[in-house]
Amino acid sequence: MAIKVHGRQISPYVRVVLLVLYEKGVDFELVSSDQHSDEYMAMLNPFGKHPAVEDDGFLLYESRAIVRYFATKYESREPNLLGSTPHERALVDQWTEVQGQIFHHPILKINSELYLGPTFYKKNTDLAVVKQNCAKLELILDIYDARLAKNQYLAGNFYSMADLIHIPMLYILLTHTDQGSLITRRKHVYAWYRDISCRPAWRKILETQI
Amino acid sequence: MAIKVHGRQISPYVRVVLLVLYEKGVDFELVSSDQHSDEYMAMLNPFGKHPAVEDDGFLLYESRAIVRYFATKYESREPNLLGSTPHERALVDQWTEVQGQIFHHPILKINSELYLGPTFYKKNTDLAVVKQNCAKLELILDIYDARLAKNQYLAGNFYSMADLIHIPMLYILLTHTDQGSLITRRKHVYAWYRDISCRPAWRKILETQI
Repeated sequence: MAIKVHGRQISPYVRVVLLVLYEKGVDFELVSSDQHSDEYMAMLNPFGKHPAVEDDGFLLYESRAIVRYFATKYESREPNLLGSTPHERALVDQWTEVQGQIFHHPILKINSELYLGPTFYKKNTDLAVVKQNCAKLELILDIYDARLAKNQYLAGNFYSMADLIHIPMLYILLTHTDQGSLITRRKHVYAWYRDISCRPAWRKILETQI
Repeated sequence: MAIKVHGRQISPYVRVVLLVLYEKGVDFELVSSDQHSDEYMAMLNPFGKHPAVEDDGFLLYESRAIVRYFATKYESREPNLLGSTPHERALVDQWTEVQGQIFHHPILKINSELYLGPTFYKKNTDLAVVKQNCAKLELILDIYDARLAKNQYLAGNFYSMADLIHIPMLYILLTHTDQGSLITRRKHVYAWYRDISCRPAWRKILETQI
């Protein structure tokens, strides 16, 4: 049975799952949540969020957990997204946590106020929220820039899950908001973004964009 | 060289790291951050947060990444905190993500307003924030209760990292706030909490409490 990914392709959370599947060259079926009732989605994930995946009857939700699951299942296929040594793996985990706990919230707020909210939910932009979260993201990106001055990728000199999960939100910031200079002003962060966003997996997602 | 854990024992984030080390019976040295300058802490973690650990010269931060690192390094020692099969491991990851992305924020807000802020930072309690986050946590805990009605632990019928990382914040909610009934009112959540908080590793932390 093929892998089913439940959720809309436009969602940055769904896109990290598609990224890992494209990187690993795994076939899947995207089942848009528009086709589902609330009851059906609740069956897939009691917290009512997307994506959720089915792999031969096994149900899983939470995008980072899904990425890790497929990265592990297809670990023998290049690219190895988990690191090769215990220390590399720990640093992949560390930067995956940094993305989830530190980086994600401010970039989500900026992207929501300037793009996702107005475009998909008819919400007005709160510029005070944008300003506050840009200030937070500046400090975070300074640390990223220092890290990426010394390492090609976040966890070291190898592309990993920790880099991959950053792509969809960075893409929105750069392409759909007026705050892209947060990235382009930082030499190493910008070089890193250009590198990881040029990978065929991400190009494939953009080509099949809804 | 012994493992060094940098941070204060009273911190719930430090405590999840101590929990995994006690569970695995690993010796370590706790180095209180009070002894360190800001510069030293920044060297350990550029984001300036605790805990950070040193393991024979290897530096790591972000508490969930640290827990996974030690759970993996000492995987052959009981209890296996990661799950045994690929599906079990994925569910451990899923519930670890649920803790980090869904559960943690509202319980942190409640604990901060009612206990951590007033006790350690001389902040006044904002009851509107408490009320708002209690409402969020109610919905989340209903889902936990349904899950724990069918499984002894979050990821299945085995104790794991996903359960462990919940203990310190639940303990504060139950012991240091007036909102403990969020837990005690829910039969299965409360039974689970009593089970996991009776483990010798957690008793050891409470006995050596600062």
